[in-house]
Amino acid sequence: MKLVALYNHPADPAAFDEAYFGVHIPLVQKVPGLLDTQITRLRASMRGHDYYLMAELYFEDEAAFKAGMNSPEMAAAGESLDSFAKGEYTLLFGVEE
Amino acid sequence: MKLVALYNHPADPAAFDEAYFGVHIPLVQKVPGLLDTQITRLRASMRGHDYYLMAELYFEDEAAFKAGMNSPEMAAAGESLDSFAKGEYTLLFGVEE
Repeated sequence: MKLVALYNHPADPAAFDEAYFGVHIPLVQKVPGLLDTQITRLRASMRGHDYYLMAELYFEDEAAFKAGMNSPEMAAAGESLDSFAKGEYTLLFGVEE
Repeated sequence: MKLVALYNHPADPAAFDEAYFGVHIPLVQKVPGLLDTQITRLRASMRGHDYYLMAELYFEDEAAFKAGMNSPEMAAAGESLDSFAKGEYTLLFGVEE
């Protein structure tokens, strides 16, 4: 099971990167049950919407995912994100085939 | 390097799945240089946009990615996709951190 976050292009990419990689991601990595984090820097959109960055957070199963999402560590990570990117991201969860 | 495809919710999910998994994905898997394909069924959106499905196509590097994108196999895969989902997907490419 994974959580997929897609970030809109920030007005100030350097400030975004500093807050994202310097503060947000270290908080994310404290979330219990998180198996792996994969971050992709998007270079371009060929169709449809454009996004700046994608993050994928992997959990063992739905129970681990739910526990992680409801943890105080995830609440802290979400707060840090909303301090610099509120309303500027899409958050999905899904199951890999 | 990877290609990320995000599909909007189809009007007829059963017909989409049949065309997608029955025709489109087998064509995608013929693309030269493709290392791996990961498909995620999205269950829900918690913020921002909602999508039905995500596909990630992995290539060794930018040269392999470009060669794959410009191949007749990818053209055939793209044609099959546009026969049932034209204008209903986002296509991005990026580099994993």
